[in-house]
Amino acid sequence: MLKEQVETLIGPSGQGFEAARTALRGDAVRTPLLPFRSGDGRAIRIKAECLQPYGSFKIRAASNVLAGYSPEALRRGIVCPSAGNFGQGLAYAASRRGVPMTVHAPQNAAEVKLQVMRSLGATVVVHPFDQWWDIMCARSAGAGEELFVHPVCEPGVIIGNGTIGLELVEDWPDFDTVVVPFGGGGLICGIALALRSIGHRARVIACEVETAAPLAAAMGAGGPVTIERVSSFVDGIGSTRVLDDMWPLLRELVDDVVTMSVEEAEQGVRLAAQQSHLIVEGAAGVCLSAALAEAARGGRVVAILSGGNIDHQQLCGILQGRGRAVGARRHEVR
Amino acid sequence: MLKEQVETLIGPSGQGFEAARTALRGDAVRTPLLPFRSGDGRAIRIKAECLQPYGSFKIRAASNVLAGYSPEALRRGIVCPSAGNFGQGLAYAASRRGVPMTVHAPQNAAEVKLQVMRSLGATVVVHPFDQWWDIMCARSAGAGEELFVHPVCEPGVIIGNGTIGLELVEDWPDFDTVVVPFGGGGLICGIALALRSIGHRARVIACEVETAAPLAAAMGAGGPVTIERVSSFVDGIGSTRVLDDMWPLLRELVDDVVTMSVEEAEQGVRLAAQQSHLIVEGAAGVCLSAALAEAARGGRVVAILSGGNIDHQQLCGILQGRGRAVGARRHEVR
Repeated sequence: MLKEQVETLIGPSGQGFEAARTALRGDAVRTPLLPFRSGDGRAIRIKAECLQPYGSFKIRAASNVLAGYSPEALRRGIVCPSAGNFGQGLAYAASRRGVPMTVHAPQNAAEVKLQVMRSLGATVVVHPFDQWWDIMCARSAGAGEELFVHPVCEPGVIIGNGTIGLELVEDWPDFDTVVVPFGGGGLICGIALALRSIGHRARVIACEVETAAPLAAAMGAGGPVTIERVSSFVDGIGSTRVLDDMWPLLRELVDDVVTMSVEEAEQGVRLAAQQSHLIVEGAAGVCLSAALAEAARGGRVVAILSGGNIDHQQLCGILQGRGRAVGARRHEVR
Repeated sequence: MLKEQVETLIGPSGQGFEAARTALRGDAVRTPLLPFRSGDGRAIRIKAECLQPYGSFKIRAASNVLAGYSPEALRRGIVCPSAGNFGQGLAYAASRRGVPMTVHAPQNAAEVKLQVMRSLGATVVVHPFDQWWDIMCARSAGAGEELFVHPVCEPGVIIGNGTIGLELVEDWPDFDTVVVPFGGGGLICGIALALRSIGHRARVIACEVETAAPLAAAMGAGGPVTIERVSSFVDGIGSTRVLDDMWPLLRELVDDVVTMSVEEAEQGVRLAAQQSHLIVEGAAGVCLSAALAEAARGGRVVAILSGGNIDHQQLCGILQGRGRAVGARRHEVR
């Protein structure tokens, strides 16, 4: 059903993506696609989404979702479950439009992100993790009349994220592969759908951290399964299960999934800082390391550096640590 | 004489800058001009030159200088005195064109930068600081037949740097003020000349660190004077004296100069990391703090974040330190 909703909203000639590009102008930045020196001639470029306002690609989705509603509908306000990045982006987009907003956050959300949402005028309600997950799954936080915005399973979210795909093709028309962090799937599905809408045939590869890799598990099992999750500094990706609504899209759009170790995530964070002077979060570190491994097999590879919201104590621990070797464990699915 | 050389090379309708833009395509990145959230509505954007290959704007100058010589002239090789950033940029541009290169470096140059130059095929000769400064001033390193490229007082350097000015106007046509780190003057003069070539009337403000502020001293004295220099982590700017060749350009093109404290430089580095997820060096930290102070007086202000080559121990010391108040000591010159 989500799949059909998204495809309808995109339209036969990709009008949905063009509308999204218009919608997010003024909120989001057109981030640069920067060459990355691998030292051994591998052809890699990085899409620096960590340079977006509030440090993540989520602003694209947030702006596009709000653009999909009439001013009358938005007057009642919006409500959204989020652990951080999406809530920040939505709070920013809502504040620019004078739309009242409530964020439902899990108890483990970073306090600094909740403070940002409050400073943007959002009401923040904190829940025990299980109750919060129920809100995510039920798509409802109770009896209010506000519009419920899901951070992943929402056509406007997926299409807003997909605008990245159009920019990649403009900046590097003949890239072969794009590697995308897998959190809930809204980012990778958006990019894959955008590429498809303009007939671009790049391979679309998801990356996960091995301590929480629900997509690799789902690909292996032929459908969503619940997995063990070990928490790590890679907090922007890695849930315990692929959302059922997303599975039909993921099965169709994702060509492959690779999992990287926590050490490889750290190495990606270190390389982004050393070579590119970018501060990236764990999910983006996973992606850069995965892209390096992918590029070693040949071809022109794009890494989506999804965000930069990393605790600076954590960052400095990584920067001052010692380098470790990078390699990928691969789960072939096609 | 340098002034006349530069003006001739620019030409009456700014052709020199358009030629430079063509010359540096493929070497340099078109860096983004990013909105910077000041928290109190000040209108600031940052030009993220730290995203250039090898982490500084110098690649623009290096590419443009090489483009100004014939292949025959370059066959003899080039020689250049540099403490780091320019030498890295020139070594990169030279390696891409198969041009032999020798860099003369002062003893206090960062070893990591010298290693990068060697890895790009350059021969590196290290000198005691005074001997190195003699090479800078004499524009000669001895009897060789190589082309001597000066890192500052070179028409191609100034015009290559100036391409930044054209990009600023394209991205934010109605900005009022640009704040530029003052090292030798090649960057600020290039930007000012580019703005003038297209009739843009932004104010051009130089910034220095108070521990080494030769331009403020020269502005006060009506000409270059030798000053005391206290070394600090702000190593990309701050010599002991404005170069005589540059003074006629600086006197004409720079509207004002502000000096910032080392603490304000640290605060700029911290803010760039926290808000923009960029790793910037001390000179860029000076510039961001100066731009914030400038924007508090009103108007749309651009900060040129000139580079990102900061030692990571130093960076982490700053990120993990505590915030301090920002304010500017101003030397009015007009």
